[in-house]
Amino acid sequence: MKKQVAFVSGLLSVLLALPAAAQFAKPEDAIKYRKASLTVMAAHFGRVGAMASGRAPYDAKAAAENADIAAAMSKLPWAAFPEGSDKGDTRAKPEIWKDSAKFKEAADKMQAELTKLSAAAKVGNVDALKTAFGPAAATCKNCHDNFRKE
Amino acid sequence: MKKQVAFVSGLLSVLLALPAAAQFAKPEDAIKYRKASLTVMAAHFGRVGAMASGRAPYDAKAAAENADIAAAMSKLPWAAFPEGSDKGDTRAKPEIWKDSAKFKEAADKMQAELTKLSAAAKVGNVDALKTAFGPAAATCKNCHDNFRKE
Repeated sequence: MKKQVAFVSGLLSVLLALPAAAQFAKPEDAIKYRKASLTVMAAHFGRVGAMASGRAPYDAKAAAENADIAAAMSKLPWAAFPEGSDKGDTRAKPEIWKDSAKFKEAADKMQAELTKLSAAAKVGNVDALKTAFGPAAATCKNCHDNFRKE
Repeated sequence: MKKQVAFVSGLLSVLLALPAAAQFAKPEDAIKYRKASLTVMAAHFGRVGAMASGRAPYDAKAAAENADIAAAMSKLPWAAFPEGSDKGDTRAKPEIWKDSAKFKEAADKMQAELTKLSAAAKVGNVDALKTAFGPAAATCKNCHDNFRKE
């Protein structure tokens, strides 16, 4: 448990400092990176969701591992939305840049809910997982509805 | 510094246990996931490389952050090479499954060198970074030469 806390606090200390360090030579590099980080996040989040919804058997250890990785991955995409990366192989809506405060708020909310999900997954029972999963999934949907094209 | 050590040891405790938890419904999901995790890893590794080679100004904090994330990401792809995922949108060579012991050895070596690079990046001088970068980059090349199609 101490290790898990260290993992998350360590991640936060490293990753909160990231955006300034994140640089992309070309808009398409940023697009590829943000899609890749969201793909990895979604894979782990999906495994937690399968357990929370009963589609997969509950495994406390796997739930905690996958929720931890999803929470860590949730920090990464946001440095990869530079101005000018609205064109190309992307479904990003112009609203991301037009209403960047709202986009940041949505991104922050998602990260906060995934951190809560990660904590809930460590409780070690499926009810705690179920309770935290819904609000976390709602933050995915919120961003997709407002900031991603069909 | 204590936080950084906690970060890496925390990561290791979580991620070494991962493969058993990693499941993909379809081979194409595994392919998408492993490419995505390697894309994210390569972006951060590339930033370290730019500093190690003098193509970008040395920034000790950015080097440490990026090396840490690259090392963390290096744990992820290997659970996503299930049997049957040699077809489709992939350059994976059949040798990955034919000579799986050699593939695992190469993957383990890469992870070990990225952990060393992450430690070297925390020393805080560019010479330590340069020394560790070459062997790490060699492990990328080794896998690409032996296990990835042109």
